[in-house]
Amino acid sequence: MARFTFFGGKGGVGKTSMSAAFAHKRARAGEDVLIVSTDPAHSTADVFDQSFGDEPTPVDGYDSLDAIEIDPEQEVTDHLMETKRALGDQVSAGIVNEIDRQIELAHQTPGAHESALFDRFIELMRDVDHDRVVFDTSPTGGTLRLLSLPEYLGSWIDRLVEKREASIDLYEKAAIGGREPRRTSLGDPILARLRDRKERFEFARETLREDASFVLVANPDALSVRESERAIESLRERDLPVEGIIVNRLTPAPDDDETGRGARFLRQRIETEQERLAELRGFEPPIIAEIETRVSEVKGSFLEEVASELEFKQSV
Amino acid sequence: MARFTFFGGKGGVGKTSMSAAFAHKRARAGEDVLIVSTDPAHSTADVFDQSFGDEPTPVDGYDSLDAIEIDPEQEVTDHLMETKRALGDQVSAGIVNEIDRQIELAHQTPGAHESALFDRFIELMRDVDHDRVVFDTSPTGGTLRLLSLPEYLGSWIDRLVEKREASIDLYEKAAIGGREPRRTSLGDPILARLRDRKERFEFARETLREDASFVLVANPDALSVRESERAIESLRERDLPVEGIIVNRLTPAPDDDETGRGARFLRQRIETEQERLAELRGFEPPIIAEIETRVSEVKGSFLEEVASELEFKQSV
Repeated sequence: MARFTFFGGKGGVGKTSMSAAFAHKRARAGEDVLIVSTDPAHSTADVFDQSFGDEPTPVDGYDSLDAIEIDPEQEVTDHLMETKRALGDQVSAGIVNEIDRQIELAHQTPGAHESALFDRFIELMRDVDHDRVVFDTSPTGGTLRLLSLPEYLGSWIDRLVEKREASIDLYEKAAIGGREPRRTSLGDPILARLRDRKERFEFARETLREDASFVLVANPDALSVRESERAIESLRERDLPVEGIIVNRLTPAPDDDETGRGARFLRQRIETEQERLAELRGFEPPIIAEIETRVSEVKGSFLEEVASELEFKQSV
Repeated sequence: MARFTFFGGKGGVGKTSMSAAFAHKRARAGEDVLIVSTDPAHSTADVFDQSFGDEPTPVDGYDSLDAIEIDPEQEVTDHLMETKRALGDQVSAGIVNEIDRQIELAHQTPGAHESALFDRFIELMRDVDHDRVVFDTSPTGGTLRLLSLPEYLGSWIDRLVEKREASIDLYEKAAIGGREPRRTSLGDPILARLRDRKERFEFARETLREDASFVLVANPDALSVRESERAIESLRERDLPVEGIIVNRLTPAPDDDETGRGARFLRQRIETEQERLAELRGFEPPIIAEIETRVSEVKGSFLEEVASELEFKQSV
């Protein structure tokens, strides 16, 4: 069974760099690793100077490291088409148009992205044959909404199943003695589909609780500190404990004998950051890495450096 | 009529500081200004060292500047209660429980936050008596989904209205000659509610197109540059042009004669940032301010400094 590692944290804190460095480190330690990016800005492609598609692709120059970039827009479209097809097979031609209209509207509402993405996550978690899957997740809020979909949609589907059974029951009564063939809920394709969805969501929730770990990436600033506190709390409420915090973007120190405007600026920044760092150190979970700001994006040799600075206990 | 200024940009780029500085500058220029924050992390409260509630509150120490913090969670709950009450009045007691269950599920799905928040935005835009309302919006993706709600929900509501009219029509036919009182779609409370919603969304879309302007906050890093490009494009597609870009978090230069590790780090950072800045300068809209990183959070005297560095043409 694969292990799933999710990188959480506010947008812009460096989730992509940190998850890429972590995946690289795990691959070098002998695991067969898949990076899953859902960032529409294709930041993972930038880290490796290589574009990835909708299927796992080997990362050039890195052993046992594959990557996949899921495009939320594309997922919504595919999800739309698949749903239309599946339902189209199951209803009379007369109402197909009506159903198509409703499905299209449903896919344009807020939340359609999360729903479609989550479906894709479940597929991946079911089918993947890597030792570890590293998710460079979307910012905290959206991620948490993703993770809570099973409970919400689960109970919704229960209601839908009840209704469907009731309508089939009526249909049978109405059909008694008539020319219509009897129907039972046994072979009902729509019921089957609803039940299948529910099973998928339950599988996902189980997997997240048993085979997944969560790492939070934070920056040493007030906003990120508060966001981290809230993320830890929300995940804990869902029995999804955060295993560790990576503090990214720490300002490097000037030389001790260095004077001038630049050195003063750096020392004052560091002073402020140390206060934020102290707050982060006060949280459960522990800080598992403190990463200094690089002079440019974390890739190539910087990625190697950062990977070597990451320390993870096996549970992560 | 009030002017509405929306601050967009990826999470963590400094929307809160920039919108607070802009609001302060406008207030000092003689406008009566309201800051609307939807950040669950209460970052506006941090900027002014003052907590704000769900109603406009004067900002201590700043003339003609009010602030309001909208809590998305609370909005969803209020929205839930209000919807239950409104529908509860309009349906037979027998199905109130069923409706309540469905409404609760609906409010737990992804997108409920955006929907409830947007309702609140419309209320504010309708009722506000300030000269200018400055929205410290949520990160780009969510914001854009907010802005596209009118079109989507608008057409959805059209369908609902059709269905409601059809069902009332059937109801009338069924009631002919029966004991039931005749109903017509004229006084129908549910139709009235649906039409009211649609009008609200249309008002919002009009207002956004005619009385609103959009400012994008970016940082000089690759991720933020790409995000900005996408945000500009998405807003343009919705006929909501971005008026200008604020580039925030530029690394300050060391003294010319400064040497040592600190100075080298700063000069290399600046070199990288200048490349990103060049990309941002290539975009329509123009860059309207370039703000250097401060040694600590932008508040107090730093807020004054930043406000004085913001240059906006009257259209913004």
